[in-house]
Amino acid sequence: MAEQEKEATLPSKENFSEWYNDMLQIAEIMDVRYPVKGSYVWYPFGFSIRRNVYDIIRGLLDKDHQETMFPLLIPENEFMKEAEHIKGFEEEVYWVLNGGTTPLDVKLALRPTSETAIYPMYRLWVRSHADLPLKLYQIVNTFRYETKHTRPLIRLREITSFKEAHTVHATWDEAASQVDEAIRLYIEFYKRLAIPVLPSKRPSWDKFPGADYTIAVDSLMPDGKTLQVGTAHHLGDNFAKTFDIKYEDVDGEQVYAHQTCYGVSERCIATLLSTHGDDKGLVLPPEIAPTQVVIIPIIFKEPEAVLNACNDVKAELEAAGVRVTIDDSDKRPGSKYYKWEMKGVPLRIEIGPRDLKNEAAMLARRDTGEKEQVPLASIKDEVLSRFEIIQAALLEKATAELNERIFDCSTVDDVKEKVQDGIALVPWCGEEKCGLDLDEQAGAGILGIPTDMDEDGTYKCPICNKETRTRVYVARTY
Amino acid sequence: MAEQEKEATLPSKENFSEWYNDMLQIAEIMDVRYPVKGSYVWYPFGFSIRRNVYDIIRGLLDKDHQETMFPLLIPENEFMKEAEHIKGFEEEVYWVLNGGTTPLDVKLALRPTSETAIYPMYRLWVRSHADLPLKLYQIVNTFRYETKHTRPLIRLREITSFKEAHTVHATWDEAASQVDEAIRLYIEFYKRLAIPVLPSKRPSWDKFPGADYTIAVDSLMPDGKTLQVGTAHHLGDNFAKTFDIKYEDVDGEQVYAHQTCYGVSERCIATLLSTHGDDKGLVLPPEIAPTQVVIIPIIFKEPEAVLNACNDVKAELEAAGVRVTIDDSDKRPGSKYYKWEMKGVPLRIEIGPRDLKNEAAMLARRDTGEKEQVPLASIKDEVLSRFEIIQAALLEKATAELNERIFDCSTVDDVKEKVQDGIALVPWCGEEKCGLDLDEQAGAGILGIPTDMDEDGTYKCPICNKETRTRVYVARTY
Repeated sequence: MAEQEKEATLPSKENFSEWYNDMLQIAEIMDVRYPVKGSYVWYPFGFSIRRNVYDIIRGLLDKDHQETMFPLLIPENEFMKEAEHIKGFEEEVYWVLNGGTTPLDVKLALRPTSETAIYPMYRLWVRSHADLPLKLYQIVNTFRYETKHTRPLIRLREITSFKEAHTVHATWDEAASQVDEAIRLYIEFYKRLAIPVLPSKRPSWDKFPGADYTIAVDSLMPDGKTLQVGTAHHLGDNFAKTFDIKYEDVDGEQVYAHQTCYGVSERCIATLLSTHGDDKGLVLPPEIAPTQVVIIPIIFKEPEAVLNACNDVKAELEAAGVRVTIDDSDKRPGSKYYKWEMKGVPLRIEIGPRDLKNEAAMLARRDTGEKEQVPLASIKDEVLSRFEIIQAALLEKATAELNERIFDCSTVDDVKEKVQDGIALVPWCGEEKCGLDLDEQAGAGILGIPTDMDEDGTYKCPICNKETRTRVYVARTY
Repeated sequence: MAEQEKEATLPSKENFSEWYNDMLQIAEIMDVRYPVKGSYVWYPFGFSIRRNVYDIIRGLLDKDHQETMFPLLIPENEFMKEAEHIKGFEEEVYWVLNGGTTPLDVKLALRPTSETAIYPMYRLWVRSHADLPLKLYQIVNTFRYETKHTRPLIRLREITSFKEAHTVHATWDEAASQVDEAIRLYIEFYKRLAIPVLPSKRPSWDKFPGADYTIAVDSLMPDGKTLQVGTAHHLGDNFAKTFDIKYEDVDGEQVYAHQTCYGVSERCIATLLSTHGDDKGLVLPPEIAPTQVVIIPIIFKEPEAVLNACNDVKAELEAAGVRVTIDDSDKRPGSKYYKWEMKGVPLRIEIGPRDLKNEAAMLARRDTGEKEQVPLASIKDEVLSRFEIIQAALLEKATAELNERIFDCSTVDDVKEKVQDGIALVPWCGEEKCGLDLDEQAGAGILGIPTDMDEDGTYKCPICNKETRTRVYVARTY
């Protein structure tokens, strides 16, 4: 990969949109120069972050799901079976019409999501109550012909890394529990990325096409907009009826199954990079960082002794499972610092002749910039304990920032003002009309009703003035 | 997943084609009932084999390649740049023509392979000799509108798991070394699957469209046909000229780069399952097997003591990293044996009251059926050493079978007869006309010139009778 010829600098993160675009290129996450709108190329470095992130979600799901893989191409007749579902997607679907120079007999859709690919097979696979619950997932590319402005990792025409789970249950209640479980799982996943997320039940007009209801998790981006970073849908028996997915219950009756599906896309990486990054580049949680520790030998005399010490530290850390690199290139230290800070390496170790004399090394944290001398004898423990401290500190900082930017609002004007900075928490009577009016008047959107908050107050809907015990999150959204 | 209602039995492997189809379904590798020709569904069990196999190839490549991911959709103008390449693929490409209900401005190809997606970016990424060699790979779905008979894992319209590497080098010779290195890497990969493969240089009319030359590895399938399971192509500077990939050499001159690409698809899993499997189902090398050991408690008295012993063994094996399952279901032992033999579990441990009295367990090998009593005290070492023995035995058996089915042939009639059973090794003068005549008369195809064989004899081309020092593999191919 061509090294950046000069040390390109990032715009201040206060100009978030510019910072985001430049960060993706300079830190080598994604190359936006691919000649198809809305399709981007993963740089190897970006992809190594993607691997670590998706290993985490795989690990979480593998506890009680099985991974599988279904075809990309969906025949038109299957795709067109579920009426609401079609309505939700018909303007967004890419159609394959030709094979070679020949028109196809049956039009083939590129999956925008896989319900209509998977459920014809579930019809064959689900027979008896003993087959349930069935919990499968896949990590695949999906396609949406977005007409809105596209943006790498956030709004794509090719979603390269869609993790979608599809479960089948005997009863509506069991499916509802699975939706809750999916949300718990996503909260845990994002915690591993040191990202706090807000779960909320989407209003009826914003649920997944064909679902009974949708619960989603949103994260807060630095510019005060929210990003929907995970969704879980209760499908009721709607798709089961369309695709004829039945099971024999304990009494020998054939009954329709109940289903859920839930997904996360590479938006998880967009929020990871955006939340923690700073004006110097990426800041990565240790578990995610492709390189967790960089060792910089400070060489002006005794180069051999210094390099030996660096190699010893590297070997010791690697034996403990740490991903570590020595940068013994000819560049000056400042240039090395720049490079590894841009890449978000959580810890930098500097070892020079003076450190050796003290049997010590200098340890610099990427997240805070703090430098500290630590004894070489305990370097492994120092590094491992710093990892935990950094992980906790990143989550704490992001949580504090999120909490500071959730505002209690009681009037439309208030909402209008506060959504410029973050998320408004607003009373809502529950009527669709008031919800849509609120959206329009505030220039923002209702995310949904928080699912992790016990309301004990009574409020007034700012539109109709009716009393209500419900409040919703309102925000400008990506 | 619906349990097979009855114990479906496989046809004899002598009827390979039926055996193969039934094996895929009964052992739950792939479901062929997906409603698009040439697209199949990975059962979770099949996918877990796929994960283990691709983890191996990832591990091998990660030593000096980086993983990346490029878009699926290739704009027509890029796809159409390389003349020979188009000729090779134009009848096989799926075209996306509509986005939503709107015709697209630019036709988009579903990648049949990714040269034309990747090389426009390499043009941007390669600047200086210091950027070289560049070695990237991706594991992606690719598409070919096959008009021939499709077959799961072997001839697909959606190849779900194409591992393709694309490298850039300063010189033609360095690219040639990389092709050799790729073939070495594939031989090592297949050795891990306990599969012997034959490397050979493809004749000029069978090279990759746009390449200088192609070396491929083939495996022998049970019916005597060969399966091409890996290819490596020297692209010379052909694509570099088309896509303007230049670098600045040490003298400051702009020169065209030299490239290679090499790929393996899920055919690796087809040959894995076909080579080792038998009439009872799969036989998996321990490293690949999703379940490596199944423990069957033999319970008619002292159930608690027996189950405790099984749990102890499980815990001990798991601590050593072994993937182990206890089958304590209500089924009778014969039914359990059937199930786990079908799934190819390398070792079965049976523990009953009599074994407990002897402080022993019964160990049964899936590959040979051999049963042996081993002391419980050393069960972990017994299991781990058996894994090595099984791996070696599978490779040895497959190698012996392959060697028995390579036949020295000197006449066309001889070739015609021998290719019914396997691979003919046939003198060839090197003329294309003789090669094509040989193919036609023998009802088979030239694979290529073995790259791992030192020829010291002199032979006669069976077509033109000219003297030659070259022989080629000829076989019926998939």
